[in-house]
Amino acid sequence: MSHLRFDPLSGEWVTVSPRRLGRPVTASAEGCPFCPGGEGSEAPDPDWDVAVFDNRFPSYGGPGEPLPGLGPGYAAAPAGGRAEIVLYSPRHDVHLPDLPEGKVRLLVEVWRHRTEVLEADPAVACVFVFENRGRDAGQTIGHPHGQIYGYPLVPPRLARELERLREHRLRHGACLVCAIRAHEAGGPRQVDREGGWLAFVPFAPRFPSEVHLVPERHVGELAGLGDEEVADLARLLQRTVRRYDGLYGAPMPYVMAVYQRPRPAAPEGLWHLRVAFHPFLRAPGRLKYLAGSESAAGAFLLDASPEDMAQALRAVRL
Amino acid sequence: MSHLRFDPLSGEWVTVSPRRLGRPVTASAEGCPFCPGGEGSEAPDPDWDVAVFDNRFPSYGGPGEPLPGLGPGYAAAPAGGRAEIVLYSPRHDVHLPDLPEGKVRLLVEVWRHRTEVLEADPAVACVFVFENRGRDAGQTIGHPHGQIYGYPLVPPRLARELERLREHRLRHGACLVCAIRAHEAGGPRQVDREGGWLAFVPFAPRFPSEVHLVPERHVGELAGLGDEEVADLARLLQRTVRRYDGLYGAPMPYVMAVYQRPRPAAPEGLWHLRVAFHPFLRAPGRLKYLAGSESAAGAFLLDASPEDMAQALRAVRL
Repeated sequence: MSHLRFDPLSGEWVTVSPRRLGRPVTASAEGCPFCPGGEGSEAPDPDWDVAVFDNRFPSYGGPGEPLPGLGPGYAAAPAGGRAEIVLYSPRHDVHLPDLPEGKVRLLVEVWRHRTEVLEADPAVACVFVFENRGRDAGQTIGHPHGQIYGYPLVPPRLARELERLREHRLRHGACLVCAIRAHEAGGPRQVDREGGWLAFVPFAPRFPSEVHLVPERHVGELAGLGDEEVADLARLLQRTVRRYDGLYGAPMPYVMAVYQRPRPAAPEGLWHLRVAFHPFLRAPGRLKYLAGSESAAGAFLLDASPEDMAQALRAVRL
Repeated sequence: MSHLRFDPLSGEWVTVSPRRLGRPVTASAEGCPFCPGGEGSEAPDPDWDVAVFDNRFPSYGGPGEPLPGLGPGYAAAPAGGRAEIVLYSPRHDVHLPDLPEGKVRLLVEVWRHRTEVLEADPAVACVFVFENRGRDAGQTIGHPHGQIYGYPLVPPRLARELERLREHRLRHGACLVCAIRAHEAGGPRQVDREGGWLAFVPFAPRFPSEVHLVPERHVGELAGLGDEEVADLARLLQRTVRRYDGLYGAPMPYVMAVYQRPRPAAPEGLWHLRVAFHPFLRAPGRLKYLAGSESAAGAFLLDASPEDMAQALRAVRL
């Protein structure tokens, strides 16, 4: 099993999973563990549209083992929780933008359902749905898929957001994300909208052409979405990825993540659901690297203005 | 000029520098702006050993321009400060491990001197010396060089460390980094030592084979080092890079950063100087990507144990 270690200097936990070093890395369909029917395949046999199963090399959860001897003076704990794989299609070459609209809706419904299942696990402090798309975003198996982590702790970034939301509510008696969404609607950073969902480049993003999708209704989690809101989100998700792929005429490597209420820690009503895309190309063929300022100092540098990026994304022909 | 934007959701500033999109990207010596004597070279003419000059595409400082119209509701500010380039050698193919020992010592002395100069600038809140080595660490010009930022604000990671150091001192009346160094000396994560400097893999690192170099004496900044301590650091720096290059038999892409006291914010005595290496290879030929958990949730995953990585680094033949 993985274990958690506390870093006293940053005040953050990291997860150590030595077993994951042996996980497969395969871009092509040959030997792909996510193509159904192949030898050693982890995917269920067809016929299915979206498949979910436990990650065979989990960062969280998995079989328990005693903690290694770490010596005194530091804190460590078993990394309970969950790690699931979500296959978007049985086919190796079908990406999110290629799916029929109904299948994207089904995917969001699967996220919603799995969130409810994982939240019922007392070992889970935060359900995090995400996709690493493309090798440059850390995708190790080329078959289009997302992942769901049931973190055993609220991860650092969400913990900080929770504090900011709490502080804003105390000061202003209102939701910070509601205020941001209202401010962005119809402004120079808006990219797209669908029903109550707004897609925009945030005022101070960390990644070039970062896009957030935020519902108008103050709702904290996928489980709180109605069917119409799910359908709207599915359409907007798909259009957003098509915009990214059209931006530089090549599949955009990105991390997509669903920020929903870390349920045990955040009281009902405090959180506001959003989906965020972190794209890794800063120009055609040029990757955004997390260099010294970002990775060592935590200070993010952008070399394009968010307003220009929003305009470029709006201008993509769909 | 670049400008700063405040992200209300994370509580962190990001820096937007649209002019930097036009900066050169050249791995080879041909057309290298850092090779002296070439057409359009930014480097001073030889003869020199280490050269320092202003970054022509600075993230901080540079000519002032009015802020773009950003609309109400958000905070922005001009990104004052400084951004300097430090060339390790006039030669395009001489990396830190190839330099004569005396030249590495000179490099550390240059860091110390520039830190004192930049700290005297009232626009500078934190002097940050770093190197992005290799394309995968964000190095855009192949000529071996480091950089020095004079940040106009204390960057997020150092701000958090400052709080942790303050808290530890309040609770225990002592320095957290002194305690960590004492704990690591002679332990399973020690990699090397030179004089009072200890090189070790931290208990809970964020990068595989991350190494910290920490002096035994409680000193907060480069300017506080004696000549002997500088010479020891230079030797240990060079050996550490040689260990990295030997680890997988290939030049290791890394970010190296000097964490010194953010002078206006940190009272004398609170900070403890260290140099940290963030290497980007997690196995031979395999990059550590900052995927969904790291880049979106801020939760770092390691697939090798720090104790194993320390052993592998110790075992490298120098």
